[in-house]
Amino acid sequence: MIAVMLVAAKLFGALAQRIGQPAVLGELIAGVVVGGSVLGLVNPHVETIEMLSHLGVVVLLLVIGLETDLKAMMSVGVTALVVAVVGVALPFGFGYLACHLMGLPVLVSIMAGAALTATSVGITARVLSDLGRLQSPEGQVILGAAVIDDILGLVILTVVAGMVDGGEATVGGVAWTTAKAFGFLIVTLAVGFLVTPRLVRLARKVDLPGTPTILAMILALGLAWLAEESGSAAIIGAFVAGVLLRKTSWFHEIETGVVTLGHFFVPLFFVHVGALVELGAMNPMTEDGRWAIVIGSVLIVVGVFGKLAAGYAPFWFRGNKTVVGVGMIPRGEVGLIFAQIGLQKGVFDSGIFGGVTLMVIFTTFLAPPILKALLSKSSGPTDRTERDAIENLVTEA
Amino acid sequence: MIAVMLVAAKLFGALAQRIGQPAVLGELIAGVVVGGSVLGLVNPHVETIEMLSHLGVVVLLLVIGLETDLKAMMSVGVTALVVAVVGVALPFGFGYLACHLMGLPVLVSIMAGAALTATSVGITARVLSDLGRLQSPEGQVILGAAVIDDILGLVILTVVAGMVDGGEATVGGVAWTTAKAFGFLIVTLAVGFLVTPRLVRLARKVDLPGTPTILAMILALGLAWLAEESGSAAIIGAFVAGVLLRKTSWFHEIETGVVTLGHFFVPLFFVHVGALVELGAMNPMTEDGRWAIVIGSVLIVVGVFGKLAAGYAPFWFRGNKTVVGVGMIPRGEVGLIFAQIGLQKGVFDSGIFGGVTLMVIFTTFLAPPILKALLSKSSGPTDRTERDAIENLVTEA
Repeated sequence: MIAVMLVAAKLFGALAQRIGQPAVLGELIAGVVVGGSVLGLVNPHVETIEMLSHLGVVVLLLVIGLETDLKAMMSVGVTALVVAVVGVALPFGFGYLACHLMGLPVLVSIMAGAALTATSVGITARVLSDLGRLQSPEGQVILGAAVIDDILGLVILTVVAGMVDGGEATVGGVAWTTAKAFGFLIVTLAVGFLVTPRLVRLARKVDLPGTPTILAMILALGLAWLAEESGSAAIIGAFVAGVLLRKTSWFHEIETGVVTLGHFFVPLFFVHVGALVELGAMNPMTEDGRWAIVIGSVLIVVGVFGKLAAGYAPFWFRGNKTVVGVGMIPRGEVGLIFAQIGLQKGVFDSGIFGGVTLMVIFTTFLAPPILKALLSKSSGPTDRTERDAIENLVTEA
Repeated sequence: MIAVMLVAAKLFGALAQRIGQPAVLGELIAGVVVGGSVLGLVNPHVETIEMLSHLGVVVLLLVIGLETDLKAMMSVGVTALVVAVVGVALPFGFGYLACHLMGLPVLVSIMAGAALTATSVGITARVLSDLGRLQSPEGQVILGAAVIDDILGLVILTVVAGMVDGGEATVGGVAWTTAKAFGFLIVTLAVGFLVTPRLVRLARKVDLPGTPTILAMILALGLAWLAEESGSAAIIGAFVAGVLLRKTSWFHEIETGVVTLGHFFVPLFFVHVGALVELGAMNPMTEDGRWAIVIGSVLIVVGVFGKLAAGYAPFWFRGNKTVVGVGMIPRGEVGLIFAQIGLQKGVFDSGIFGGVTLMVIFTTFLAPPILKALLSKSSGPTDRTERDAIENLVTEA
């Protein structure tokens, strides 16, 4: 029955959003409120809640995949790649340096730097989607960079986890992890474009209501599982499923069904992310808490600056570079996962854990309102009219 | 990732249904196949699977509630009550007698009789809904009787569980359980009709997409929880939520959204019910298995006859009495719950458990095809044109 709390929390959050902030922000806050830190109604570590939340990201990335024009994304591919790489390198380097200068051990500094590299595709994509800007050039660059970032994050996580466990990070190991992750993307897309239309044609013979939705869910869950099994991230599988289904004749039926499923599942994910936040770790009344606030503040400055700079890295990009930079800022659940692993493995003490959590909260909550303010400045939603969007932005600049 | 198996199983089942059988049957069979008995891919006792299945019944009963015209149901109220009461009394009496005559102890006979009283609203309602006959007079009687049956079943379960635990079933205790269960129905309906329109008016102010669906889910989950807390059955709460929302100005938006959610969740429920079946308990190679088949055969005869007779009990009813009787036959998950409790409490040995399971499987799988054959004989679906349906049936009789 905790589901009641979750759904109620979503409405609560959604209502709060009427004051002109993106809905996600409300859902995240709802999560913090119902979570262990405040009301304690929802325990985010319960298996069933975790599973619903996981279904939530899968549905979210499926929807985002459905709304992603692969060609448009490819056309900004190099830009996205540069943003992603710079957005990983700068925060990691700065984060490591800053922690090292504060006198933290090397391993702790590396882990903190790694937590700074994360980008939450989910949060930014949701804001862009709420504003109808997923199809804008900035939206495509952010999304592309975030997907690449997820893969890079995975590689970093593998390497760092290996180092923590005492192993050596060999160049071969890193290359293999990277190859596997990117290989999954390329292979499933290639095979998928051949197989999916046939699959849809086959499924069309079942004239039961709801078949498009179920088919999409099967493909998304199947590819998510496959992605995880092959060493990539589950949400990338779900994203690929969306991209593949976009090209089929069933696109509209699938979109309608999956979006409705999303109305139920996606808020559960954001509430869950919110509930994972442990406010206790940054209680200023304790010494650990004060230390957490100091570290957190440094990491916030470094983390915001690093990602913002990444937005400006592709100097040739004619869109709004600030939007791209801000879009890369939120660390969301990915950052929290890094923090959690650090704590579990004993690399982070509760002070550093609190600092990293503070950085994650701050960056996650900062980006949606700024993004909204930046995007609503330049006219209303320009969904699907990419050229207009570009013109708008050019005249503005 | 077991969700993948479940969804895949649904498609598998749905495909099988193209041979002219109701889709539920395919989903149940899919459950048996992927469940512990055959392939062992899905363990129905895993908490997350149980929760998804539970969400499935909640959504199903919400949809059924949305499609239930309370006035039409009230107008056949007495008929439904008679069908329900006779459909509980006869199978219980016959079942008890039959078991007693076979030399089983009193407590075992009572428990077996109790398992025979169950009616699965879910399965019959789903078949009726698939055939577009939920609105027919027979559909209304069956649905009404099944809801009352669920309440009676609850009372019986409480009483029997009390007896098994060594307590005495006092008249006061039984009356209190009954009053609580029916009281919940009356109070929530009365309060709900006053409150729900206001709730909808309030929720309408949130102009985020998906709000109707979320509102319906909150109400359904909330009332399901309330029902369970107050000693009634969770699915009755979900049903009440549907009935209440039907009367609001948001009916169509809610229906569209919830039905789409149902496409995902409801099959999970039926697959789960299928997966609960333990074929091993009726293996004819073991002595227990042979004993199970003997008991099962007797219980099947008694159980089918008892419910069929209940359909004929309201002699004044002008609709098709056979349809009503057949509609009451499937025991579904309710019967399995009785069997499981009997086994857990040590009342049933594995032979009797197998017999009861056999009866549940047989009655559950028997009803859908018969119902379909009976209903498709009299023209196609007559959804929402009740008068036509009555005329059809009258001319036929």
